[in-house]
Amino acid sequence: MQYHENPRFPSGFRCASRNIGLKPKAKDLALFVSDVDAAAAAVFTQNHFPGAPVILGRETIRGGQLRAIIANSKVSNVATGARGIENARRMAAATAAEVGTTADRVLVSSTGVIGVPLPIDLIERGIRGMSGELQTDPMVGAYGIMTTDTHPKALSASVPGSEATITWVAKGSGMIEPNMATMLSYIFTDAAIDAATLDRVLRQAVHVSFNMLSVDSDTSTSDTCAMLANGRAGRVDERAFLETLTVGCVRMAETLARDGEGAKHLLRVVIRGAASDQDARRVAKSIVNSPLVKTMVAGADPNVGRLLMAIGKCFGCTVRAERTDAWVNGHQVVRGGERLEFDDATVRAALSTEVVEIVVALGVGDATATAFGCDLTQGYVDENAAYYSS
Amino acid sequence: MQYHENPRFPSGFRCASRNIGLKPKAKDLALFVSDVDAAAAAVFTQNHFPGAPVILGRETIRGGQLRAIIANSKVSNVATGARGIENARRMAAATAAEVGTTADRVLVSSTGVIGVPLPIDLIERGIRGMSGELQTDPMVGAYGIMTTDTHPKALSASVPGSEATITWVAKGSGMIEPNMATMLSYIFTDAAIDAATLDRVLRQAVHVSFNMLSVDSDTSTSDTCAMLANGRAGRVDERAFLETLTVGCVRMAETLARDGEGAKHLLRVVIRGAASDQDARRVAKSIVNSPLVKTMVAGADPNVGRLLMAIGKCFGCTVRAERTDAWVNGHQVVRGGERLEFDDATVRAALSTEVVEIVVALGVGDATATAFGCDLTQGYVDENAAYYSS
Repeated sequence: MQYHENPRFPSGFRCASRNIGLKPKAKDLALFVSDVDAAAAAVFTQNHFPGAPVILGRETIRGGQLRAIIANSKVSNVATGARGIENARRMAAATAAEVGTTADRVLVSSTGVIGVPLPIDLIERGIRGMSGELQTDPMVGAYGIMTTDTHPKALSASVPGSEATITWVAKGSGMIEPNMATMLSYIFTDAAIDAATLDRVLRQAVHVSFNMLSVDSDTSTSDTCAMLANGRAGRVDERAFLETLTVGCVRMAETLARDGEGAKHLLRVVIRGAASDQDARRVAKSIVNSPLVKTMVAGADPNVGRLLMAIGKCFGCTVRAERTDAWVNGHQVVRGGERLEFDDATVRAALSTEVVEIVVALGVGDATATAFGCDLTQGYVDENAAYYSS
Repeated sequence: MQYHENPRFPSGFRCASRNIGLKPKAKDLALFVSDVDAAAAAVFTQNHFPGAPVILGRETIRGGQLRAIIANSKVSNVATGARGIENARRMAAATAAEVGTTADRVLVSSTGVIGVPLPIDLIERGIRGMSGELQTDPMVGAYGIMTTDTHPKALSASVPGSEATITWVAKGSGMIEPNMATMLSYIFTDAAIDAATLDRVLRQAVHVSFNMLSVDSDTSTSDTCAMLANGRAGRVDERAFLETLTVGCVRMAETLARDGEGAKHLLRVVIRGAASDQDARRVAKSIVNSPLVKTMVAGADPNVGRLLMAIGKCFGCTVRAERTDAWVNGHQVVRGGERLEFDDATVRAALSTEVVEIVVALGVGDATATAFGCDLTQGYVDENAAYYSS
């Protein structure tokens, strides 16, 4: 698979971003436009309190076609009742007028503080004129959707055996344990794919990527992962497309994890030999979410017995202590459920690299899963003890 | 219910503690003795990797009688294989010889780092002579079982309508989300109760107290809650006994929560109107475990929309957004699933008290539950990024 060093859009997609005064100086509004109607699919948060844009988005995506995505940061338009829905509709309508389509072809996203009214007048004024600023660099849009992210996130790849490109633009670094969806992740392609197929391959890719990502075990009310295919590059082999899509989604999930709030390390947890897919996913998530494993990684403290604790608290999963092995960046630390005697300095060094990969072999079946997360540092506490107030 | 200002033992119980060199200076070995054989019950961790003392303890408690409990800190004797079991048996035998009973009447506990061999020779030598140091003050034993606790934990209460006393001695402040058991919590009474009844009332009390406690969502491999009844004070009314036991267990769970690693606040989450007990318990635990709720409390940041996020991520629970209300220390912050417009300063003040009580009314049934936890601060990260190394 060929990833582009500098991400670029597939042909026929452009974006713009602005500061409209929601934040003091940073970009707070982003617009993504397809030159033609694109086949579209999306998955959204399963949280019981979905934001107004998610409620509207579920309705919009049923049409299977999109021309534009509009996203603001700072205020999430969640827990805002009927007025919130009305504001999301106004945001879609203003965007439709600006780009020359109808509101039912515009996907709306809002992220930020929960429960605060959306400043819709400011946003409507902010949208005006954005179509004159559209550019072909996806990083322009990636800047526009950032919240606590420390850098914009975009990547692109070519689909083998075709002229098609896939481009991902995403944001998110806290309140992140997506379930059936992800934070904001927009995927653009010029491959020719119908909406039903797009929906199917998107769900497959999300299952092993964004749905295995957790920064802090908290599931956002705004998670949205949408994909647009405008057909400009013609048909593609579905298997090659799915493969490219999946690998890119995993790469983007890792990018989000390593920019988790306060994170200094990417934590990748690979489970092998589980009794079922469900067990493999649960054990991987348990380790990646354990505050004691996460602080162990933060401090490069070779306290690897905590791995057994995190595996062992997966009640209902098949775990046999005597068959359980574990490795940290290739160094075996557990054999048959017992912590090996090892050189502390070696394991400390293994835990000090930016990417820490923990492999656990459960020895009770053939199922595997990989989860993506990060360490837990003072930075996370600092950021979230004053998120609303700052 | 009458709680004693200074905890005292029921008649016939004594304890001693020592520093035997496992830690630099602090007490690291504790002995609890009943003058006569006491009826006994216990619940243990459900973690798939129980420590050797838990494996041995399950065997010991089947006899329904105990004379002594011996507990060391610093090394947990978990993930140590057959040698670990042998060392736990040696610890029981040495204690039995010291207090004049048999090893099958001694409960052993070890807590501390997972996966490190128990220094059994040091412990055997350390036990010798302890029976000459037994005292009637339970705080002596409470000091002896501390790990990262900042203070020793003991309390006692009289059972109404009887001469009987119940005394709790406990420790624990990290790796705490007990399941079917708790960290180390020893309960002593001079009431006359048979082992089967003791087992039943202990499980009832633990269900609503220690099993609703979470400092960090991590379930220890060493959790043990044992109760001894020596009969010295005669028979008691079972209902009065259960009531006293339950209230004391809840109080001890709150004591553990407010001494959670790095904690500055006790977080009490009350769920009302849930569709089932299971739903009520899950929503309560979801809120008490949410890093974003915990950091909100740490920073007294009135970002109460996070409560809806934490309720909403309870997939599979019955939640109706429009029926959901929430209060923070008596101030309503959510009505019908929408964040109320409130005075930030008022809610900030409510979040600044040492005890923060969050009440959520789900409005879909009659079930209730209360969970106990604490805030998430830099202190937790500091403590756990170097627990093994320090």
